[in-house]
Amino acid sequence: MDTSPDGVSVLGLGAMGSALAAGFLAAGHRTTVWNRTPGRAAAPALRGAVVAGSAAQALTASPLTVVCLSTYDAVREVLEPLPGAVAGRTVVNLTSGPPVDGQRMAQWAERCGAGYLDGVLMTTPDRVGTPGALQLYAGPAALFRAHEPTLAALGDALHVGEDHGLPSVYDTALLGLMWSTLTGWLLGSALIGADGPGGGVPATAFTDVAARWMKTVETFMRDGARQVDAGHTPGGQFPLDLHLMTMDVLVHACELRGIDPQLPRAHRALVHRAVMEGHGSDSFARLIGYLRDP
Amino acid sequence: MDTSPDGVSVLGLGAMGSALAAGFLAAGHRTTVWNRTPGRAAAPALRGAVVAGSAAQALTASPLTVVCLSTYDAVREVLEPLPGAVAGRTVVNLTSGPPVDGQRMAQWAERCGAGYLDGVLMTTPDRVGTPGALQLYAGPAALFRAHEPTLAALGDALHVGEDHGLPSVYDTALLGLMWSTLTGWLLGSALIGADGPGGGVPATAFTDVAARWMKTVETFMRDGARQVDAGHTPGGQFPLDLHLMTMDVLVHACELRGIDPQLPRAHRALVHRAVMEGHGSDSFARLIGYLRDP
Repeated sequence: MDTSPDGVSVLGLGAMGSALAAGFLAAGHRTTVWNRTPGRAAAPALRGAVVAGSAAQALTASPLTVVCLSTYDAVREVLEPLPGAVAGRTVVNLTSGPPVDGQRMAQWAERCGAGYLDGVLMTTPDRVGTPGALQLYAGPAALFRAHEPTLAALGDALHVGEDHGLPSVYDTALLGLMWSTLTGWLLGSALIGADGPGGGVPATAFTDVAARWMKTVETFMRDGARQVDAGHTPGGQFPLDLHLMTMDVLVHACELRGIDPQLPRAHRALVHRAVMEGHGSDSFARLIGYLRDP
Repeated sequence: MDTSPDGVSVLGLGAMGSALAAGFLAAGHRTTVWNRTPGRAAAPALRGAVVAGSAAQALTASPLTVVCLSTYDAVREVLEPLPGAVAGRTVVNLTSGPPVDGQRMAQWAERCGAGYLDGVLMTTPDRVGTPGALQLYAGPAALFRAHEPTLAALGDALHVGEDHGLPSVYDTALLGLMWSTLTGWLLGSALIGADGPGGGVPATAFTDVAARWMKTVETFMRDGARQVDAGHTPGGQFPLDLHLMTMDVLVHACELRGIDPQLPRAHRALVHRAVMEGHGSDSFARLIGYLRDP
């Protein structure tokens, strides 16, 4: 079997696993695939893939195997009987699970003499292989660098650190950011789309402006992050006092236009508490103290 | 007095008005300034500005006057006695207020034979004049285009429509998006910064990754906006059922690490309601229905 440096195997051909294999094939990698229940490899997108008859065959076919199964239990069930097949090779595990599971898999791989990266794909299967598709990996930096050219076929590959528990926590934290952002965007779309003076704007028009605005919001995040890490959150020209005043405008506007004011009120309550406790001249980043210690 | 096409006057020298005047001066515009209480024009950043002795003098000194006062009441008090000074000239009003106030000022300006744009600066004074500083303007498109080269000195100038009430609603909706986003970012920073497997990550490290992730979130917003406008929200590969499952992970992770789970629970409750009502295969954009009709 081919063991050229750019050969790659994929274990698991669910929607995401199939997208991974298709991404490697599209980038010209010799790609070997395996799925517990056969038949999945016949999909048109996987034309050109070598179909392994067993997980052991797939693992030994390539220096790098990417695993994408439904749960860590399934990963353990497939890999743990095959320590010899992973020895001297690298396993990249993209299966979702809690951070300790990634750490435990890494310990098992080390005992087997295998390289191990834990990872998460922050995208949907249909976007795998597009330049913006974010993928986060953790494990030894040198191991990531060695396989980065192959993994780059899937999108924007990023090494977040050595601790194999990191991708899981990043996944959860980034999804939390996404839900907050999307809910705020929907609320803005609802508000500006409602009837009233200056209203009736389509969501697409609002979103064009919102996307430009998010560049400024990113600078607030970056400035705030430095403050959080320094443990010092001066408010400068946009202190919590000013946030509170303008938050009242938002809550009132929602009430006037019949939009659910619950989330703006929750944000306002957090800022109000900080202001009442004497932090009115601090920045928004000061609120992390209340999230950490509710 | 100079009435060359690039001359500009600024009424109001608070923190923001002073930043506007400094921005025009830095871009080489002949800049005339006026403030109700004198003295402000002596600031070093305003060196080179012509100091007008009255609002009328400032208005007649330039074809374009930018007004930035504390309230619309102040704007009316200054401008309404001076219909002759605005006739044949253009007023750009950057004062914050409710959408009807912008519309009423536009009607007054029309009666005076003046051009009128209402606007909002989505930035802090210290960022005025930087390329990313977002400014939104509404009023006749041709009038905006005529003054765009001058306004571009202040940052990223955008025309959002003809209705003079638009900037106020955009301001409120975009700030709402900002608060949601920043709160979600702080929650993510708190979660990934807390002790535990895969934890202890500095906010700056998380934010570098979050900034890349936001490019993907922007594509979700754009896809969702098209769905909102079409009134049809199929969930494709990221339906509400899947959001709900992963939201449970976030709520649980917050509880485990001592982070306030209140906001993730509120987001989860919204998704849970939609799923219970049979919208589990819809996209996140489907939730706008609940925000519009709580």
